[in-house]
Amino acid sequence: MADLVWASMGELARLVATKAVSPVEIVNAHLDRIAALDGTLKAYITVMTDSARSAARNAEARVMAREDLGPLHGVPVGLKDLYCTKGVKTTGGSRILGDWVPTEDATVVTRLAAAGAITLGKLNMHEFAYGPEGLNVHYGTAWNPWDWAAHRICGGSSSGSGAAVAAGLCPGALGSDTGGSIRIPSALCGLTGLKPTYGRVSRAGVLPLAWSLDHVGPMCRSAVDCALMLGAMAGHDPRDPSTSALPVPDYRAALTGEVKGLRIGLLRRFFLETAGPPQRLAVEQAVKTLEGLGASVRDVSLEQMKYAAGVAAAVISVESYAYHEAWLKTRGPEYGPDVRERLLAGAFVSGADYLKGQRARRLIRDEVDQVLGDVDVLIAPTVPIAATEVGVSEVEVDGRRAPVRPSLIRYTRPFNASGHPAASVPCGFTADGLPIGIQVVGRSFDEATVLRVADAYQRVTDWHTRRPPLGA
Amino acid sequence: MADLVWASMGELARLVATKAVSPVEIVNAHLDRIAALDGTLKAYITVMTDSARSAARNAEARVMAREDLGPLHGVPVGLKDLYCTKGVKTTGGSRILGDWVPTEDATVVTRLAAAGAITLGKLNMHEFAYGPEGLNVHYGTAWNPWDWAAHRICGGSSSGSGAAVAAGLCPGALGSDTGGSIRIPSALCGLTGLKPTYGRVSRAGVLPLAWSLDHVGPMCRSAVDCALMLGAMAGHDPRDPSTSALPVPDYRAALTGEVKGLRIGLLRRFFLETAGPPQRLAVEQAVKTLEGLGASVRDVSLEQMKYAAGVAAAVISVESYAYHEAWLKTRGPEYGPDVRERLLAGAFVSGADYLKGQRARRLIRDEVDQVLGDVDVLIAPTVPIAATEVGVSEVEVDGRRAPVRPSLIRYTRPFNASGHPAASVPCGFTADGLPIGIQVVGRSFDEATVLRVADAYQRVTDWHTRRPPLGA
Repeated sequence: MADLVWASMGELARLVATKAVSPVEIVNAHLDRIAALDGTLKAYITVMTDSARSAARNAEARVMAREDLGPLHGVPVGLKDLYCTKGVKTTGGSRILGDWVPTEDATVVTRLAAAGAITLGKLNMHEFAYGPEGLNVHYGTAWNPWDWAAHRICGGSSSGSGAAVAAGLCPGALGSDTGGSIRIPSALCGLTGLKPTYGRVSRAGVLPLAWSLDHVGPMCRSAVDCALMLGAMAGHDPRDPSTSALPVPDYRAALTGEVKGLRIGLLRRFFLETAGPPQRLAVEQAVKTLEGLGASVRDVSLEQMKYAAGVAAAVISVESYAYHEAWLKTRGPEYGPDVRERLLAGAFVSGADYLKGQRARRLIRDEVDQVLGDVDVLIAPTVPIAATEVGVSEVEVDGRRAPVRPSLIRYTRPFNASGHPAASVPCGFTADGLPIGIQVVGRSFDEATVLRVADAYQRVTDWHTRRPPLGA
Repeated sequence: MADLVWASMGELARLVATKAVSPVEIVNAHLDRIAALDGTLKAYITVMTDSARSAARNAEARVMAREDLGPLHGVPVGLKDLYCTKGVKTTGGSRILGDWVPTEDATVVTRLAAAGAITLGKLNMHEFAYGPEGLNVHYGTAWNPWDWAAHRICGGSSSGSGAAVAAGLCPGALGSDTGGSIRIPSALCGLTGLKPTYGRVSRAGVLPLAWSLDHVGPMCRSAVDCALMLGAMAGHDPRDPSTSALPVPDYRAALTGEVKGLRIGLLRRFFLETAGPPQRLAVEQAVKTLEGLGASVRDVSLEQMKYAAGVAAAVISVESYAYHEAWLKTRGPEYGPDVRERLLAGAFVSGADYLKGQRARRLIRDEVDQVLGDVDVLIAPTVPIAATEVGVSEVEVDGRRAPVRPSLIRYTRPFNASGHPAASVPCGFTADGLPIGIQVVGRSFDEATVLRVADAYQRVTDWHTRRPPLGA
C-alpha cells in the first residue's frame, strides 16, 4: 500500500481503470499517510476525510459498473485553500475567512471532479497568497519535507501544495501563482509545477491576490502529471471573462520525449549570473543534458526585466488592497502582521502609478514575445537560493548577502507580468540535500512545448523521483 | 454649387461615381464655404487646402480611369484634431502639441482614405478632449451654428466636428467619445452621431483621453451617412489590441426602414424624468413616432446609473493623469486652466479607487446587458438641456438650477462605462430654435439596429434636414 502514495497520477489512473487497485485503497493510503505525517508537516488546513472516502466509494462503483472513466478517475488531488469548495470551508489561509463555507465549487474544481479526481483536502498557504515564503501564523507554517526538522520553508504562497505533493500526502495539487507561488514551492520542494499562460485556466471561484497577475495551475511530481491535470482544467470558462477561447491541445500526447532541434534561450544576465553556485551549476548541467538530447542553446537576455519589480509592487499592492480594503478597515487585527503591512501599503499607490505598472508590463511582454521569436523556450533557474530556515531574512549568495523575500521571486515574477507559461522542474540538490529547480518558459498558450521539454528531461534524469527523508 | 455642401455623403458618392460632379468641385465648394464662414465659426484648427485639392484631383482621375471606387470616393471628411495625420500637425486642441506633426496616419484615417474619402482638415475640440463644453482657449472656441451670434457652445469635446458638419463645412466628421463627446455635440448641433461599441473601431493613432472609456465614431447629418462611415472604419486592427475580431456587417444594408415589432425600452427614471421640458416633449414625441411605425414601447430603468459619475471621475482622472503626468510636470502652464485643473486632480486618486471605478463598470454593463435582453434598444434624451451661452455655468431646468457641465454628460457617460453602442439623433428644437437629440442605445456590437432605428425615424421626420441660420 505504501507505494500507492508514491505512484504518479497517470499510474494511479491506470491502476484504477484496470481494476488493479480500488480508488478506496488509494484514498485510504493517502489519508493514512496524512494522519501519520501531517501533524508535523502541516500541509493541510482541512482534510476532507469523509467526502474523500465517499467519493472513492462512488468512483469504485463506477469502475465496477464499467462506466466511461475520466483521465483522473479515482486519483486524489489536494487544493490550495483558496479554491472554493462547495460545503467545505475555504480559508485562504486566513482567520478572516476561517469559517467561510462557499456554496459553489471553483470551475477548475468542478472540472477536476468531472475528470474523476477525488479531493483529499484543502492545503496550507501564505495568508491570502501574499508572500513567497509560505508562512502562516493562523494554521501553522507547512514545513519543507526535505528538511522539516530544521523548519525550513516550502516557499510560497502554495506552501501546503509543495509539502503535500513532496511528502506523498497527495500525488498532485493545485497552486496559484501571482509572482511565482506555484514555481517557487515547486523548486524548493522538488516538484514539477506549471504556471500556465494567463487566460488558459479559469480562475472563477478562486480567491484573488491580484487578478491581473494571478494564474492557477498544477503542482505534481512529473511533467506527465502536470499535463494530465492541465488537460482536465484548461479552456474557456464563461464564468471567467479573462479565459481564452483558444482550443485546448492534448498535452499528454505532446510529450513525445523529443527535443531534437529545439532552440533554447538561456537567460544568463539578470538570471543565471545572479543565482547561487549550486543553482547555477545544476541549471548549466541540465542545459547540457538537453543539448545532449539534440537541443541547441544560445544566450538571450531580457532587458525589460528591470521593470519587473516595479510592476509587481504597483500592481499587486493596488489590486490586493482594492480586494481587502473593507476588511482592512473593519477586521484589520485579524490579519497576520506581515500580510496586513503589505496590504496596507497598497493604499498609498496612486492610480497613475498603478497604470504605469500595467503599461510597463507591455514592455516586458513584448520583449519576451520577441525573444521567443528566435528560440522555442527560455531557461533560467527558478529561484537563486534553496529553502531557508524560517525567520531567516538574509542569506549568503556567492559571497554577497541577499534578502530572502526579493530573492525568492526575482526569476519568476517577470513571467507573471508577461503572462507566458512557465514551469519549474527539479534539476538537482544542494550539498545540504535541498532541491533545486530549473525554470522553462514558453510562448503564450504553448504549454505543450514547456511540458515536452520538462518531460524529455525527466526521461533521462531521476531528480524528480527522489523522495524526501521522511521514512516510507 | 452651394447645394453640394448640403448633400449627404451617400449622395456625393453617387454624384462622383456617376460623373455628375467631380470630387474637385465638391472639395472646392467646401473649401469656399470654410473660407467664408470659418473665421467666425472656428470649426477648423487646420484646413488642409492643398492636400485636399490634390486628393480631389487624384480622385477625379481615378473616376475618369474607370477604376473601382470605394464607398466614399471623392467625399470630404473632417477629423477631430486628435486623429494622427501623417505630415499634418495634430494638436489635440492643445498648445503642447501645437507643432507636432505625426509620421503616421491613425488606422481609421487610413481606412477612410482607402474608402475614397478626402480629408478637408483638422477640427477644433476641447483641449485634449477633456471637457463636454467644447471650449478652447488656444484656437478659439467653435461656435454653435444654430446661434453663433450669441456665442453658444457646440458641446464637446468634438465641438469643431459638430460645428463643421452642422454648418456645411464638411458632410461628415470623426469625433471621439469618452463621456459623451460625440453624442453631446451631435445633440446640441442637430447631427446624427454614433459612439460605436467599445472595440468596434480602432483607436490606434488617436490621442487618448482615458483609453478604457475612449470610443471613436462618425458625426454626420443622417444615420445613412453614419452607416457608410462606420462600415469604412470598423473591424479588427492589429495596431489596437482592444479591437474585436467580430465580423463587420453591412451597416448600409441594415437600414431597411423597418421597425415593426421592435421593442423599445424607454429610460424614464434618471433620464427622461430629469430632462428639461422641451427635451422631454421632443423625446416623447419621437417615441410616439416610432410606435406609429410599429415599435412597442415599455419603461425600463437602469439602477446602476448611480455609479456612473464615480466611474467617470475615477477612471477618466486616473487614465488622463497617467497620460499627461510628464507634461504636467514640465509644461504645466501651457495647458488651459480648466484642463490643467481637471488633469491635476487625477494625481490624488488612489489605485484602489481607480479599480473600484473599473469594477463598478461591470455592474453597469451587466445591467444594460440584462435590460437589453428584453428590449432591442434603449431610448433616452441625449442631453437634458440645449446649447448654453459660453461662460454660463448653471441653467434652469424645469424650475431647478442645474450645473451645465454635469448636466451635459449625465445621460451619455453610462454607455461609455458599459461600452454599448449609442447614437444621438435630431428630434426637435427648443422654442429658441436650438436642436434637441434623442439617444438610441443598442446591444454590444449591434450598431446595425441602432442605425436602423435612427434611419427609420429619419425617413418620416425632417429634423435632421434643417439648416442653421447662416445663410445659403
